[in-house]
Amino acid sequence: MADPAQSAASCSLAVAARRITAGGAETREEIVAREEPIALVYNGLSYAVMMASPADLEDFALGFSLTEGLLTTADELYDVEVEALPTGFELRLSVAAERFAALRARQRNLAGRTGCGLCGVDSIAEALRPIARVGGSACFAAEAVFRAMRILPERQILNGEVGAVHAAGFASAEGEILLVREDVGRHNALDKLAGAIARAGIDAGAGFVVVSSRCSYEMVHKTAALGAPLIASVSAPTALAIRFAEEAGVGLAAFAREGRFTLYANPDRIA
Amino acid sequence: MADPAQSAASCSLAVAARRITAGGAETREEIVAREEPIALVYNGLSYAVMMASPADLEDFALGFSLTEGLLTTADELYDVEVEALPTGFELRLSVAAERFAALRARQRNLAGRTGCGLCGVDSIAEALRPIARVGGSACFAAEAVFRAMRILPERQILNGEVGAVHAAGFASAEGEILLVREDVGRHNALDKLAGAIARAGIDAGAGFVVVSSRCSYEMVHKTAALGAPLIASVSAPTALAIRFAEEAGVGLAAFAREGRFTLYANPDRIA
Repeated sequence: MADPAQSAASCSLAVAARRITAGGAETREEIVAREEPIALVYNGLSYAVMMASPADLEDFALGFSLTEGLLTTADELYDVEVEALPTGFELRLSVAAERFAALRARQRNLAGRTGCGLCGVDSIAEALRPIARVGGSACFAAEAVFRAMRILPERQILNGEVGAVHAAGFASAEGEILLVREDVGRHNALDKLAGAIARAGIDAGAGFVVVSSRCSYEMVHKTAALGAPLIASVSAPTALAIRFAEEAGVGLAAFAREGRFTLYANPDRIA
Repeated sequence: MADPAQSAASCSLAVAARRITAGGAETREEIVAREEPIALVYNGLSYAVMMASPADLEDFALGFSLTEGLLTTADELYDVEVEALPTGFELRLSVAAERFAALRARQRNLAGRTGCGLCGVDSIAEALRPIARVGGSACFAAEAVFRAMRILPERQILNGEVGAVHAAGFASAEGEILLVREDVGRHNALDKLAGAIARAGIDAGAGFVVVSSRCSYEMVHKTAALGAPLIASVSAPTALAIRFAEEAGVGLAAFAREGRFTLYANPDRIA
C-alpha cells in the first residue's frame, strides 16, 4: 500500500509566485499540484493518455481498466510497469490475452485530460453504455454518511497542501473511511480508489463511495462498475447522473456536508 | 446571440429529492443541471462525443474546433446544424475541404466526458502539443482583474440556479465582462466562450479570460489557442499549467477572488 504522505509529496512542487492585492505585491513560494500525462499501454498497445497526479499509478492502472470495462476482474491484470519519462509516465500493463483481443477491437487512441474519465467510445450510445445493476439490499444509516463526510477532509493530504485536488474514498457501512485516493482529476481519483479496493480485496458491496467533488454521470458509472451501492458527493449531481443512478441501483446522496445530504436516487439505500 | 436566461432554462430541470438531516427527512423539489452527450460530426465524420450542458451549441461547435486546432479560422466553418436526439445532441459541422482532410488524418473516435477537453491524440507528445506563443505586450491593471472577478458570479445564471456549474468569461482591458458561457464541464465552458468570441468578432488579444474553476494545463492551452494574453482563475493552478503558460506567453493569475490574486506566470501581463 502506498504511504499517503509520500504520495502527496510526489504530487506537488514549490514555485515562485507573486501575490497581488489592492495594497501591493509580494513574492512568495507557493506549493502547486503536479499534473502529468500518464500513458496507458496494454500488451504494447497505446490506449489512452490521461492528465493526472503522478501517485498511486498501479491503483490507477487497475482501477481504470476495471471501471472502463477493459478488464472484468483484477486477476486479468498480470503486471504493471511504471516508467517515469521526461514528459510524463508510461504504465505498461500485461493483461490476459482474451481481454486484449476485446480491447484491441475497441481500441481508440485517446487523450483524457484532467478531470476526464473518457474511454474508447465513438457514439452517443456507447458514451451511455449500460452497466450491470448493483444488486442486493445493502443500505446505510444516515449517520454513517455524515460521519464519512466529516472525516474525508482530514484524509485529503495532498489537497491540504495545494488545494483544489479531488478525493475519492471508500467507507465501511459504519462510515469509517477505509481508503482514500487523490488526484487533480475527479475521475482519476475514483479510478485510483477502484484499483485500491480491488488490490486490497475489499468487498465494494459492503460500503459506499464518498467523493469531494460533484457527481456527474461518469462518477455514478464508475461507482456501479466497482459494485458499490451508494455514492455520496460533497457537491451537486447532474440530471443524467441521477437518471443513471436510478437505473444502476446506486443510491445518490449529494450536497453531503455539514451534517446533511440530499438523496436523489434509490432512497432505500439509506435506512 | 443566445439569450442567457433561456440558455440557463434549457440546461436545468426539476427533480424530486429527499433532504436528510440528523433531525429527519423532507421531500422537496430540487433543480439540477442537465448533462447530455453532444456528438461532433465533421462533414459526416463522427469525431468526438462530449458530455456537456445543452446550450450555446453553435458556440461550442466553433470554439471546440478552434481551440482543438481542427479549424484555424472561424470562416472555415461553413455551417452547423444542431439536432436534438432522444439521448443527446448531434452537431453537424460543414467545414472547408482542406481542414477536413487534416482532421480525417488525425481522426479518432472519442468520448469526452464532463470536464474533459480532450482531442484526438495518441501519445504524450501529442497530449502536450505545442501552440503558437501569444505575442504582443498587452498588460492589464490589477484592478481590472479584481473587477472582472467581482462581476463574474452575477453573470453565472445557470450556476445560480443549480450550483456546481462552471463559467468562462471574456473581460475587456478595463475588467468589464463582455461575454460569459456556462457548462457542467469547465473545458466546455471555455470552448463555448472561444466560439462566442470568434462569432462576435471580438479581438481576444485586447482582453483576458476569467474562469470560475481551477486552472489546469488545458485551460491555458485553450486560452493560448484563442489568443488571449491572460487567464484569471478563481481556484488553484497546476504545475503543468504554469509551465505551459510561461512557454505560451500567457499570464496566469490564480486564486483570483476577494480583491486579490496570485501571479504564477508572465507577471509582466499585469501592469
